Amino acid sequence: MSGYEVSQEFTALLDRLRSAPLRADSTPVAELRANFEKLAAGFYDPPPVDFVPGNADGVDIEWVYAPTCDRSQVVLYLHGGGFSTGSIPAYRDFCARISHGTEAAVLSVGYRLAPEHRFPAAVEDSVTAYRWLLANGVDAHRIVIAGDSAGGGLTMSTLIALRDSGLSLPAAAVCISPKTDLALTGTSVREKAYADPIVTPDGSFTHGVRYVGEGGDLCHPLASPLYADLHALPPVLIQVGTAEVLLDDSLRLARRLRDAGGVVDLDVWPEMIHIFPFFASRVPESKRALEYLNSFIKHRIRSPKSEYERTACRPGDIR
Amino acid sequence: MSGYEVSQEFTALLDRLRSAPLRADSTPVAELRANFEKLAAGFYDPPPVDFVPGNADGVDIEWVYAPTCDRSQVVLYLHGGGFSTGSIPAYRDFCARISHGTEAAVLSVGYRLAPEHRFPAAVEDSVTAYRWLLANGVDAHRIVIAGDSAGGGLTMSTLIALRDSGLSLPAAAVCISPKTDLALTGTSVREKAYADPIVTPDGSFTHGVRYVGEGGDLCHPLASPLYADLHALPPVLIQVGTAEVLLDDSLRLARRLRDAGGVVDLDVWPEMIHIFPFFASRVPESKRALEYLNSFIKHRIRSPKSEYERTACRPGDIR
Repeated sequence: MSGYEVSQEFTALLDRLRSAPLRADSTPVAELRANFEKLAAGFYDPPPVDFVPGNADGVDIEWVYAPTCDRSQVVLYLHGGGFSTGSIPAYRDFCARISHGTEAAVLSVGYRLAPEHRFPAAVEDSVTAYRWLLANGVDAHRIVIAGDSAGGGLTMSTLIALRDSGLSLPAAAVCISPKTDLALTGTSVREKAYADPIVTPDGSFTHGVRYVGEGGDLCHPLASPLYADLHALPPVLIQVGTAEVLLDDSLRLARRLRDAGGVVDLDVWPEMIHIFPFFASRVPESKRALEYLNSFIKHRIRSPKSEYERTACRPGDIR
Repeated sequence: MSGYEVSQEFTALLDRLRSAPLRADSTPVAELRANFEKLAAGFYDPPPVDFVPGNADGVDIEWVYAPTCDRSQVVLYLHGGGFSTGSIPAYRDFCARISHGTEAAVLSVGYRLAPEHRFPAAVEDSVTAYRWLLANGVDAHRIVIAGDSAGGGLTMSTLIALRDSGLSLPAAAVCISPKTDLALTGTSVREKAYADPIVTPDGSFTHGVRYVGEGGDLCHPLASPLYADLHALPPVLIQVGTAEVLLDDSLRLARRLRDAGGVVDLDVWPEMIHIFPFFASRVPESKRALEYLNSFIKHRIRSPKSEYERTACRPGDIR
């Protein structure tokens, strides 16, 4: 008897990931990218949706529409992959599940990757995609920004950049296993290294340096949002597993957001691993986590404008 | 630069605790109790309140009244100390701060301690105190049950026992660093042993065995609520630090409550230690955590009855 049991499917996922480690610290980027696509392809089994590629003022995007979705409500999705891997196609299954579960359209953003395009290219592209949505008549309070891993950190960076530009903020944000501290100062970096089958401390550091460049500032607040001023941001759902090198990236982000007066839903999953909701096509825990994520988005994206204005924090607001 | 800085006062607290470890695994109970009182006395500096001792159908209690408190609203407080130490006097400072911060009366419960009185004596006494409140005309939806460490686990056990007895449940509950798994199966038990200045794995195990008795069931759902059916309980605030052997007791409790359809506010404090809010007389982080705790209680205890009925979960409710 134990405090928390995992499913057989999750155990199978662990075995699979451990049998083919990514080795992000020692593998050439081109090969890392190919391996990421291969991994994602193994979990591709989306519900029926339309994928419509497009361009948002120069940024590659793809619309993902579930048959019944309300296209005036948009989840702007920022994929993971350490800022140097990952892609729109790798996240088609995941974005399809979000569109189905939220009954909103998903705008998947193909932001530029490092090392060809270093920080702040990813932030610029995410902001551009959001501005483009506003310019095309989508109400800010009908948008939720979401992302995983590097894309979860980028979700926070994008919110901060939008706030600092004085733009209307989205209704909410969702960070799945967000990478918020490229300097890797969390205690989970060493405590969970044995347990995490995806992120290694060395691999994570290599990705970080590739993103900000040799000698770049790993603690720049738009690259590592843990170090940013987090006042006056919308409500944030953070999902994270306890078997993650990046666990403390989430716990500290939640704390800092609350310190800044923010509304945070910290959803910690015992035994779960980095970006576990991504594996929803096969793993029941992932599916349940994604259901919760979708219900959070659905609730926030459909709130009446009055509630949006009440819960979207403004400078000086008290929690 | 680091992801999260702590105050000088907190560092001083750490030094103080480390210089006089409790050694709960190898110290006689009488001495442990005396040391606990001595430790608490070092942090005694309460705001002005009235302490009124009493008896609730045979259970020792003490009322704690801030001058302006509304006596129709009651925080039923269950102290920590591993079920075999701790007392009403040791928690006077803490209960006084809760009465001040919530403007409610605090009912501090001196439940019977192990090994003289083993499980389920503590649960029985807590339930008796709650029933006594109801019998004396206090509305269930104007009660919040709160506790720390063993008292945090006892808070959950009490809720479960009340639900199973078909009694009206309180408006909410607060668990500070709750001990929810006497079997110590959390990974934090080993990962945080180096960091925790209060709870050691051996000491915690010794306390657990003393509570359930040699050969007793460490996983009994009313002794280790992590193993209980957690459906249909009121909203729960869980406060915990990341430098705790019992961190996973909180993270898993939060997850299980959510799995059961519950409303949970999981408030994790980076670098903070076991029952850190207790040290509010000296440590700014503790003070801030207690302010949040008080605001949670205040909000829940004053909700209109309609909201109480909406958010107090019933069997079959969906989160």
